Amino acid sequence: MKLAVSGKGGVGKTTVAAAMVRLFSERCRVVYAIDADPDVCLAAALGIPDDITGELRPLVEMREKMAAAGKSGEDSLTGFQPCLRELDEYCIAQRNIRYLRMGGVKKGGSSCYCRENTFLNAVVSSLLLEKQDVVVMDMGAGIEHLSRGTARGVDLMLVVVEPSLNSINTAGLVKRLAAELGIRKIRVIANKIRNELEKEFIISRFSPEEVLGFIRFDEGVWRGAMTGCSLDGSEGKLSSDMREIYERVLKELELK
Amino acid sequence: MKLAVSGKGGVGKTTVAAAMVRLFSERCRVVYAIDADPDVCLAAALGIPDDITGELRPLVEMREKMAAAGKSGEDSLTGFQPCLRELDEYCIAQRNIRYLRMGGVKKGGSSCYCRENTFLNAVVSSLLLEKQDVVVMDMGAGIEHLSRGTARGVDLMLVVVEPSLNSINTAGLVKRLAAELGIRKIRVIANKIRNELEKEFIISRFSPEEVLGFIRFDEGVWRGAMTGCSLDGSEGKLSSDMREIYERVLKELELK
Repeated sequence: MKLAVSGKGGVGKTTVAAAMVRLFSERCRVVYAIDADPDVCLAAALGIPDDITGELRPLVEMREKMAAAGKSGEDSLTGFQPCLRELDEYCIAQRNIRYLRMGGVKKGGSSCYCRENTFLNAVVSSLLLEKQDVVVMDMGAGIEHLSRGTARGVDLMLVVVEPSLNSINTAGLVKRLAAELGIRKIRVIANKIRNELEKEFIISRFSPEEVLGFIRFDEGVWRGAMTGCSLDGSEGKLSSDMREIYERVLKELELK
Repeated sequence: MKLAVSGKGGVGKTTVAAAMVRLFSERCRVVYAIDADPDVCLAAALGIPDDITGELRPLVEMREKMAAAGKSGEDSLTGFQPCLRELDEYCIAQRNIRYLRMGGVKKGGSSCYCRENTFLNAVVSSLLLEKQDVVVMDMGAGIEHLSRGTARGVDLMLVVVEPSLNSINTAGLVKRLAAELGIRKIRVIANKIRNELEKEFIISRFSPEEVLGFIRFDEGVWRGAMTGCSLDGSEGKLSSDMREIYERVLKELELK
């Protein structure tokens, strides 16, 4: 099963993605946690120290290795099929979680991340997963990853919103573009909900079946953001809200 | 003078950019307010209704018009010099503010925004402004606009942060990439500050001269986000914090 998490910047995409990775790791053989934003945050949210993430070879280097072996050109991606063992050198393993990052930080003014996005899509599309394996992709903020088609082929797109009109508008665009991309299941998760008024605001904007759940605003998450404490940290724990949403995700994926 | 506002998603880039546009409009002949994110928010923050923004021709269409006139190829951008009147058809005028958007929303899976970013840079770089004119660009979340070089040539890069390690880390990357891009002045604005602890956290992470100021967390901004009320709205007003930061910006630009 393949999931992507998207939404406007700052709504809590990475928090949701990291929670899904952790929860799926309790029942799956392997969970691939993929940072599809060059400004990586998912590793830290999974408790992987910055120095280890900094040394990880980004996935796009596999493409460069292919090019060096004479397999260049976009046509070399047709029928492309990396074996899971090949991926190992681009992974940080943490129990049964495999963390990968799409691309490294480039020099200012050097180039875009088109190549990285294209290659990531080729890898994720071609991955022949075992039935018990899951991929969770933490997408970049905004909508460009959708016009690029990076998450094409995922089974479920989770769109995170907060009680703000801007994040709802972005979610509307994400839904439209994801549907154009052929993604059949697109569901909304509402984060940072402080009261009934904010909950009702969300409810008024979506149909009941598309909202998977509400995550209450957590003062600890705000305070914890200064130390960058992860879900793994002593202060971090997966909320009951997140567990309920996970149960709904399993149902959407017909895993329950 | 040309300014760009950047930072991690959700830190309040657009709020800061809109405030700068409003404040500069009090003293300048014309202020160009440019939305450099396809997921546009700056228009709404300036009080421009969605239906008007929706009908605005994005700037990239000027490029298409050039191509139709036989001026295609990247070399046609060498020596490119649009006159300000040519820009008019891509602007929404609001008193002495001219709002422009880089690109429109594309279909899912259709393409990237490289062309839009390249053209925006060509336009902004070539604009021969009157001494009293200012350009404020609201950049997309994250760092790709920097590796693309969209804001190359601006006089001042404002990096917005909030009291979170992730936003500070992104600011570090923005500073490095903006310097590589040749931007000489890069300054930090701290947003959503609730207490002394959060203020000290920011102070501990930057040198005193690079932090232009602190914007207190505003419950009204949070609540207002549901209605999308702009700075122009009856509930919206520019805070004294924002005015102080504006004074510091004027000093940085040697306009005061």
